[in-house]
Amino acid sequence: MLLKSFIEVHPDSHFPIQNLPYGVFNREPGSEPRPGVAIGDYVLDLSVVASAGLFDGPYLRNSDCFYQACFLFFPIFVRASDLNPNLNKLLELGRPAWKEARITLQKLLSAAEPILRDNASLREKALVPMGKVQMLLPIAIGDYSDFFASKHHAKNCGVIFRGPENPINPNWFHIPIAYHGRASSVVISGTDIIRPRGQGHPAGNSSPYFGPSRKLDFELEMATVVGPGNELGKPVDVNEAADHIFGLVLMNDWSARDVQAWEYVPLGPFLGKSFGTTLSPWIVTLDALEQFSLDAPEQNPPPLPYLAEKKSKNYDIALQVSIIPAGQKDAHVVTRSNFKHLYWTITQQLAHQTINGCNLRPGDLLGTGTISGPEPDSYGCLLELTWNGQNPLSLGGTSRTFLEDGDEVIFTGCCKGDDYYVGFGKCSGKILPSPP
Amino acid sequence: MLLKSFIEVHPDSHFPIQNLPYGVFNREPGSEPRPGVAIGDYVLDLSVVASAGLFDGPYLRNSDCFYQACFLFFPIFVRASDLNPNLNKLLELGRPAWKEARITLQKLLSAAEPILRDNASLREKALVPMGKVQMLLPIAIGDYSDFFASKHHAKNCGVIFRGPENPINPNWFHIPIAYHGRASSVVISGTDIIRPRGQGHPAGNSSPYFGPSRKLDFELEMATVVGPGNELGKPVDVNEAADHIFGLVLMNDWSARDVQAWEYVPLGPFLGKSFGTTLSPWIVTLDALEQFSLDAPEQNPPPLPYLAEKKSKNYDIALQVSIIPAGQKDAHVVTRSNFKHLYWTITQQLAHQTINGCNLRPGDLLGTGTISGPEPDSYGCLLELTWNGQNPLSLGGTSRTFLEDGDEVIFTGCCKGDDYYVGFGKCSGKILPSPP
Ligand SMILES: [Ca+2]
Ligand SMILES: [Ca+2]
Ligand SMILES: [Mg+2]
Ligand SMILES: [Mg+2]
Ligand code: NI
Repeated sequence: MLLKSFIEVHPDSHFPIQNLPYGVFNREPGSEPRPGVAIGDYVLDLSVVASAGLFDGPYLRNSDCFYQACFLFFPIFVRASDLNPNLNKLLELGRPAWKEARITLQKLLSAAEPILRDNASLREKALVPMGKVQMLLPIAIGDYSDFFASKHHAKNCGVIFRGPENPINPNWFHIPIAYHGRASSVVISGTDIIRPRGQGHPAGNSSPYFGPSRKLDFELEMATVVGPGNELGKPVDVNEAADHIFGLVLMNDWSARDVQAWEYVPLGPFLGKSFGTTLSPWIVTLDALEQFSLDAPEQNPPPLPYLAEKKSKNYDIALQVSIIPAGQKDAHVVTRSNFKHLYWTITQQLAHQTINGCNLRPGDLLGTGTISGPEPDSYGCLLELTWNGQNPLSLGGTSRTFLEDGDEVIFTGCCKGDDYYVGFGKCSGKILPSPP
Repeated sequence: MLLKSFIEVHPDSHFPIQNLPYGVFNREPGSEPRPGVAIGDYVLDLSVVASAGLFDGPYLRNSDCFYQACFLFFPIFVRASDLNPNLNKLLELGRPAWKEARITLQKLLSAAEPILRDNASLREKALVPMGKVQMLLPIAIGDYSDFFASKHHAKNCGVIFRGPENPINPNWFHIPIAYHGRASSVVISGTDIIRPRGQGHPAGNSSPYFGPSRKLDFELEMATVVGPGNELGKPVDVNEAADHIFGLVLMNDWSARDVQAWEYVPLGPFLGKSFGTTLSPWIVTLDALEQFSLDAPEQNPPPLPYLAEKKSKNYDIALQVSIIPAGQKDAHVVTRSNFKHLYWTITQQLAHQTINGCNLRPGDLLGTGTISGPEPDSYGCLLELTWNGQNPLSLGGTSRTFLEDGDEVIFTGCCKGDDYYVGFGKCSGKILPSPP
């Protein structure tokens, strides 16, 4: 029988009881951050659930991952620093604790369970309408790396910049290529993005162009949120990598293509990327995504042994990008893609990142790279969609090669089950003009 | 008259009263980290100075940057998390507080001042023999970026990999080129470095090589420790950049040249660098370095306006690299270089890093890139010194192209005044074999 909650959840909702993604929210602007899970149009406040003693399994009973014990024992000495402003402690606990939390919360929210359902005052404290909360960045990100795992994206970039012969570098088929991005400028969905200024390629022998980026783009990505880390010098086995992954979020790796093109030889993208990266607020767990897993594409040439998986999994997550052009009201869909198009899996990415001994820490972020599909209407960035500005997109009476000030870009992601969705909500940002 | 301390400081010491570099140390392994400054062969415990009320100036009197107030008021509730395990709070305070601390400490340690000199029990508590402490990473590093600011290094790499015609890419003369490195694997001097495993370039059509790196190298660098940060979207003016810099450390950016060469196109170095980066324990402040400043090299073509400084400064810091080959006892000097050879200044690096709006946070690290000088015996890495392995170095009866297991690499850095040195101590690490 289908698991149902006593909370009414609309059939189109991304957040049925089968999902229960984790986030961090404010009840009021400036108030202390609290951990929560999304259920229908509500946020369940996990600090309330924890302090009511409802996490009563062996892993979470004595854990302070949702609320520091100090506050519970000595409420008079509470300071802002006593609250966990993020989910990092939960991430560190690992899969057994995450499974316990999932079982506890699915039971607590189920239609048959009276503890919360029949306790009006507890319900009042624990359940907050989603429209009343402000979502915050749910994790403290130690390091953020960004991969290049879609073959369609790698190929399109190669054709655009180097022509149709051998568009993909030979190393790409052996290495889940990646670079380190900027952790400080990762922001939560809804944060405005200020158009970066920077240098662009000089015309002939003149000085380089300097000013607001003329080729501001989005990149449709998802990102792995790392759970337990590994010790420096001790690589993670690819077949155990999933145990180091808490879940996934949507990610927009905003990119200034003119800045990137002029700076990236020989050390890779830097200022073309580091001005802002947007995450969706709800981390959907691997446990919730499991029923939407499918085989990853066959890899040829076969990967080296340290990247060879017993079972190579992707997830069937439909992704969509819309733009609300400046001054308009309606969103126009510009691409429809799917997470399943990735060539290198997230477990291969994680194992590769550690094969040299590099240590991961809870809350680290591994971006997938732009997720383009095979068809032109599934390309994951404007660089590809407009073929570097050659073919403008038409959007409700206006057109775009790259993003203009005032444009808002909205990503959504969603798994479609028979009776419900398991979704990511949205990941959005609006472009503000450069400073003068 | 020359400022002198009541503590006897050997004339060869890196740590006279004119220096007073900051670090974090343990009195015993596993005990709580404490902030300190180096003076001769002692460490002055700043938590003792602070709790004795000796930081009595307006900026530091009520600050908890050296010890959390909670401990002072409620010592019974102290938890490990109440102590500052790093200097980040001091970094955040900015130059006026740093100047106040310097004046306070120079007075407290001076020969003429009785407060500490004549109080045996306070002296006993506050001064710890340097040989008895363990130094720890002094900062929590949010983001670490690594520049490429030596023209000699850029030219040598270009000649080695692309030949003698136009060895330096055209963008290099306009952009202080950089990439983001790995913050999680930054370690303190003395930490062993495990040889990374990884992929190297395939021979012909075969699969790529996989195994322990065959071209393990050091890179002689220094790094800027960031003080107050900037808000996302608000670049730091190049002429105000020095106010965002607390000081400098020595840095060894260990590099696996075979891994780097195969992976770096098109997104830059990743696993070839992320297995370990070593810092010297003492942060020498810009205030202590000021008297050793000199004009930076002339820049031609002139930099774009956002990089044009009213005064472009380097520092005269003599740098030296020695190797103790595996199984031997003596260190052999392999290079002598100087910080003054850098083309792009640290203030230009910092301004460039933020020109797109990227935000810095206290404790961020900006590596200079390998500091090579013009002469072959001043090259800053084995890649250059052995010309990619073509000319082995001879070291006390043995020879090296790249590093072997058991080799220890030691950097030192030092400014030479008329009557004293202002130095950085050392930055060392020993190579351990790869895991099987
Ligand atoms: Ca990307
Ligand atoms: Ca370097
Ligand atoms: Mg970005
Ligand atoms: Mg390194
Ligand atoms: Ni980082």
